[in-house]
Amino acid sequence: MALHPDRLLPSDAGARAVARRLYQSVAQLPLISPHGHTDPRWYAEDSAFSDPVTLFVQPDHYIFRMLYSQGVALESLGIPRRDGGPVETDKRAIWRLFAQHYGLFRGTPTRLWFEQSLQDLFGVEERLSPQNADRIYDRIAECLPRPEFRPRALYDRFRLEAISTTDSPLSDLASHAALRASGWQGRVLPAYRPDFTVDPEREGFQDNVRRLTALAGTAMSWTGYLDAHRVRRAFFKSLGATSTDHGHLTARTTDLPAGEAAALFERVTGGAPTPEESELFRAQMLTEMARMSTEDGLVMQLHPGSFRNHNPALFATFGPDMGADIPTATDYVRALKPLLDAVGNDPRLTLVLFTLDETSYGRELAPLAGHYPSLRLGPPWWFFDSPDGLKRFRELTTETAGFANTVGFNDDTRAYLSIPARHDMARRVDCAFLAHLVAEHRLDEDEAHEVARDLAYNLAKKAYKI
Amino acid sequence: MALHPDRLLPSDAGARAVARRLYQSVAQLPLISPHGHTDPRWYAEDSAFSDPVTLFVQPDHYIFRMLYSQGVALESLGIPRRDGGPVETDKRAIWRLFAQHYGLFRGTPTRLWFEQSLQDLFGVEERLSPQNADRIYDRIAECLPRPEFRPRALYDRFRLEAISTTDSPLSDLASHAALRASGWQGRVLPAYRPDFTVDPEREGFQDNVRRLTALAGTAMSWTGYLDAHRVRRAFFKSLGATSTDHGHLTARTTDLPAGEAAALFERVTGGAPTPEESELFRAQMLTEMARMSTEDGLVMQLHPGSFRNHNPALFATFGPDMGADIPTATDYVRALKPLLDAVGNDPRLTLVLFTLDETSYGRELAPLAGHYPSLRLGPPWWFFDSPDGLKRFRELTTETAGFANTVGFNDDTRAYLSIPARHDMARRVDCAFLAHLVAEHRLDEDEAHEVARDLAYNLAKKAYKI
Amino acid sequence: MALHPDRLLPSDAGARAVARRLYQSVAQLPLISPHGHTDPRWYAEDSAFSDPVTLFVQPDHYIFRMLYSQGVALESLGIPRRDGGPVETDKRAIWRLFAQHYGLFRGTPTRLWFEQSLQDLFGVEERLSPQNADRIYDRIAECLPRPEFRPRALYDRFRLEAISTTDSPLSDLASHAALRASGWQGRVLPAYRPDFTVDPEREGFQDNVRRLTALAGTAMSWTGYLDAHRVRRAFFKSLGATSTDHGHLTARTTDLPAGEAAALFERVTGGAPTPEESELFRAQMLTEMARMSTEDGLVMQLHPGSFRNHNPALFATFGPDMGADIPTATDYVRALKPLLDAVGNDPRLTLVLFTLDETSYGRELAPLAGHYPSLRLGPPWWFFDSPDGLKRFRELTTETAGFANTVGFNDDTRAYLSIPARHDMARRVDCAFLAHLVAEHRLDEDEAHEVARDLAYNLAKKAYKI
Repeated sequence: MALHPDRLLPSDAGARAVARRLYQSVAQLPLISPHGHTDPRWYAEDSAFSDPVTLFVQPDHYIFRMLYSQGVALESLGIPRRDGGPVETDKRAIWRLFAQHYGLFRGTPTRLWFEQSLQDLFGVEERLSPQNADRIYDRIAECLPRPEFRPRALYDRFRLEAISTTDSPLSDLASHAALRASGWQGRVLPAYRPDFTVDPEREGFQDNVRRLTALAGTAMSWTGYLDAHRVRRAFFKSLGATSTDHGHLTARTTDLPAGEAAALFERVTGGAPTPEESELFRAQMLTEMARMSTEDGLVMQLHPGSFRNHNPALFATFGPDMGADIPTATDYVRALKPLLDAVGNDPRLTLVLFTLDETSYGRELAPLAGHYPSLRLGPPWWFFDSPDGLKRFRELTTETAGFANTVGFNDDTRAYLSIPARHDMARRVDCAFLAHLVAEHRLDEDEAHEVARDLAYNLAKKAYKI
Repeated sequence: MALHPDRLLPSDAGARAVARRLYQSVAQLPLISPHGHTDPRWYAEDSAFSDPVTLFVQPDHYIFRMLYSQGVALESLGIPRRDGGPVETDKRAIWRLFAQHYGLFRGTPTRLWFEQSLQDLFGVEERLSPQNADRIYDRIAECLPRPEFRPRALYDRFRLEAISTTDSPLSDLASHAALRASGWQGRVLPAYRPDFTVDPEREGFQDNVRRLTALAGTAMSWTGYLDAHRVRRAFFKSLGATSTDHGHLTARTTDLPAGEAAALFERVTGGAPTPEESELFRAQMLTEMARMSTEDGLVMQLHPGSFRNHNPALFATFGPDMGADIPTATDYVRALKPLLDAVGNDPRLTLVLFTLDETSYGRELAPLAGHYPSLRLGPPWWFFDSPDGLKRFRELTTETAGFANTVGFNDDTRAYLSIPARHDMARRVDCAFLAHLVAEHRLDEDEAHEVARDLAYNLAKKAYKI
Repeated sequence: MALHPDRLLPSDAGARAVARRLYQSVAQLPLISPHGHTDPRWYAEDSAFSDPVTLFVQPDHYIFRMLYSQGVALESLGIPRRDGGPVETDKRAIWRLFAQHYGLFRGTPTRLWFEQSLQDLFGVEERLSPQNADRIYDRIAECLPRPEFRPRALYDRFRLEAISTTDSPLSDLASHAALRASGWQGRVLPAYRPDFTVDPEREGFQDNVRRLTALAGTAMSWTGYLDAHRVRRAFFKSLGATSTDHGHLTARTTDLPAGEAAALFERVTGGAPTPEESELFRAQMLTEMARMSTEDGLVMQLHPGSFRNHNPALFATFGPDMGADIPTATDYVRALKPLLDAVGNDPRLTLVLFTLDETSYGRELAPLAGHYPSLRLGPPWWFFDSPDGLKRFRELTTETAGFANTVGFNDDTRAYLSIPARHDMARRVDCAFLAHLVAEHRLDEDEAHEVARDLAYNLAKKAYKI
């Protein structure tokens, strides 16, 4: 192994030389992580991580879905069963199983992130294999208890400037409050993710709405419910939040007259709504959230298109987030129109759009973002946060939307140790893309340096108001 | 700046050498411009263009939509409001505003077209910036009144061999007639664009149909209406037209029995048709137009898939063509079947298909064009008339449809001064694509030279019967 | 001509050197051909092929659809008319016509396959042209009667290790049985293709179902019908079959309660089913076939998305398979769910998915195959079995599904002589892709060698249980 310093840069010598210069000028910039899923308690408690498997394998659905696809039972990886049934508990045995199947990750970003983490953090320069699995396990396990591997020390080592978590509207944000009070200089920001209080098809929705209004001290009515969101958004803002996040099956929005919306609220909270009523309520709430963003300035993020929990047997045994969320074709042009009709020209709104349907990059998203002042394009998401995925994003959006209508990079991860590797990958791929423009004389190199800095740092900071 | 002679050619040295040879052999070929939106009066009157802003900024929705997407008000660019409200009138101030935001165009084709026009026509070799904005403005303004910058002189300088405009069936084609009478050698051809006489959802449709039949001296009936199109098409042909053009929301066609079509005509011209009736009428008219093409030989062009005027607030204030036309997913396989069933095997028909949905290139358009003798593929359209867009078109269509089922390049522009730069870009990108085939030993270089000449010149001339 | 030894390898010198090493290590591996359409009688009878046109032109819809798209009548190529009307019978005249239009195939895979066959088998190193057409015709015609050009000799010369044919459930597999009895060492395996016994919209469906149950000696009922498939599958297995194949318009599946399925069977076999009933029956049968695969271990292949016989005039005159089958957009995520819910986690099932809709590679197929243990991705199919198509497949699937969830290469052809060229193309393109990963330091070269061997040989052998 021993990571090559030019990895992910173009193989063509001329373009590589340009790419290297660009990369060197941004490689050491601080990291802005405006969207992710790390646990705020890590920073608040600053405890040591327990072991290599808990750190690298078990929380990472990129890893265990690949093993599962090749016949490895999730039980043998120690993924807990909902029924409390027996699963492997020997961490070293799990690590060996991972090592045995390590070849499956050839050509995947998981492999590159993992190896960069191993090398940069633990000094491991060998490729994982059944032969060296124990040695590498020991090496990591030996490091983890040390002070320099605690979350706050890593925050500094990673050159993080700010990192956002993702939080429930019902959360008391205790860890965020504790962090504020602690005097630590790191910036860990909450983000408002109201999905299970706006989606009537989520388990417990009606109860969640009741808890939300109770927490906010508002009435259990349409206007009370909207006010409850306003109250909770303000609370999030008071603890540093700059954004909201919305994960919907589709990008559908609507803008019902107030009376109809109120009646819909009664139906979805009062009984058993039809699928269409549920979809309509979610659609209405996207528009309401956009309107609230024009009021309070929180940047709105929309992540549509994932068919969640596609595998019911797996869901029944292990629950959600087991690698069985599958992308679907997603329309934006018609879906977003009601929201855009309402607030799309409002300079106070920033709506960051993500997709799992790459066909929309050039056909819909770039033309929309290249026109509406409120719209920005989020970076490649999930399966497409990868070298070729990042490259396709630039190839398919730049000619129509330019660079300024994109928002830099989001790592979107719960794998804390992979964060520097993920940002590094994005910086390398963006520099490779820019080098390609320079080598084909489509952009001057001095401009490419400015753009590289924007993509690596400035755009995220500006778009997310950090 | 100073445009690099190898711009857009591959950065790899081996492929670049081949590309350079190919490009040199086609760079100076005459331009065939079989589809565009320049104003026939320019050629008829041969007056000087007024100023840099009227020439480069205000007519170009590629430019002002990008500025608008980053918060620049259209009023500040002097775009006229429908209500006659105040807008910026100081051309130099508008130019400075453009210069200030010039960085937004990094990585876009607009940038490349603009700079090539500046350099080749006005000798400007600096990159536009707030610092040199006035100097460049003055330089252009100083040139424009000169005889060599008049439309006819530019026609010669551009090596145009023929250029098509786009005209209403209701037009008297006075400029075209005047040109014919003038003795000038340039070929400016009208094209028959009947959209607002065939689309019941366009404002004024019923009135337009009445005017059409009146103009043609036919009855206000289904057969009279069809005859009116025949009469007007013949009139266009008499002034040099070789093609018709059809911009529809979808590619849907149908082929109703004559009685049903006549009844549909009565409904759409007589009252308030339903959306489905309007769509059906448009669908029927595509088939009728294809049938007329088998009679009179006019080449038929179909441009489906643009959701027009997506932004109602902008439309209300400024009208159409403000950069808010957004592509949508487009089906061709089922949509075109009725038309193809009727005349798809007819050797007298040439139907040129365009798309704003790149997913259809490989999946639908290349297989259709690689089979039906009547079908040809138009070049990348609109957002995809760009270096990467042109490249993807060849990559996604050639292996199935070859080169001969495509029709060379259309500049499709109202920006007269950008025409040579647009053709030059297409020639460079096609030569780069061919060089890549040669460098990978998939095509011999002598053949690549033949193909390069076909793509740059022969195919357009042949397909459009020019 | 004279094929370049580095054809299809990257033009960049660094990557080409790696690609060359990889290719050299797999170029001579035996061929596994687990899916194709050669005629089992060829191997059973081992007769000489008759002439160049019967061999290269008339059976190849890639060739004659391209000629047809440019105005060449199928009659002039000697394609038989259904009505027995006159068609060209002079083989040499047809060959000259092909030679005259040979330039149409520039940039297509057909060209590369054809030239490699000419050179490797017949020693022809000139590019076909009107000038040398007769000479090349004579050269081929002279070779064909020789013993070394008989099917079995070619099998050895091609280094085929096993080849699958595609067979009707009603076939007696006489050629396969004869081959088994012959003592010849070649492995020619049948594959179970039940389409016209499961698709109520195929001509003769009801009769076919009757013949199927009669042949199997089962009742003409839902359970009898299912048992008939079981009986015939077992018969196929006894003669070496390892797979089934299913060509459906969509990937839709369903899993009806037994009573409803039985009632549906009665409707589709008893009367005139509605289109929805026919689709539902096909959908149900995919799930039934998957269940049978869990019982008998036959690998299941699904080829959805082709709109068959799009051109009714051509179909009426010449019948099916005339190059008028056109791809359509295909959903897998919702369509396959009922089947996957039933048996998607069953380790006994291998379901190989193909597509004609490349947008599904990254969005749907790779995420599905990267999760479900039963799913594997088939290689690029039909129009996409081409250098750029093969490359896009790897670029769009590898980062999510890796290599192990793909099944190597299928030649899928009835053009026996092109088989080595098709496998060679796939090996070259895969090696080029791997070389690109190595040159960008995303994969170590020792691993790339292992993967190259998997893609060229191991994966097909394993996935198809050969």
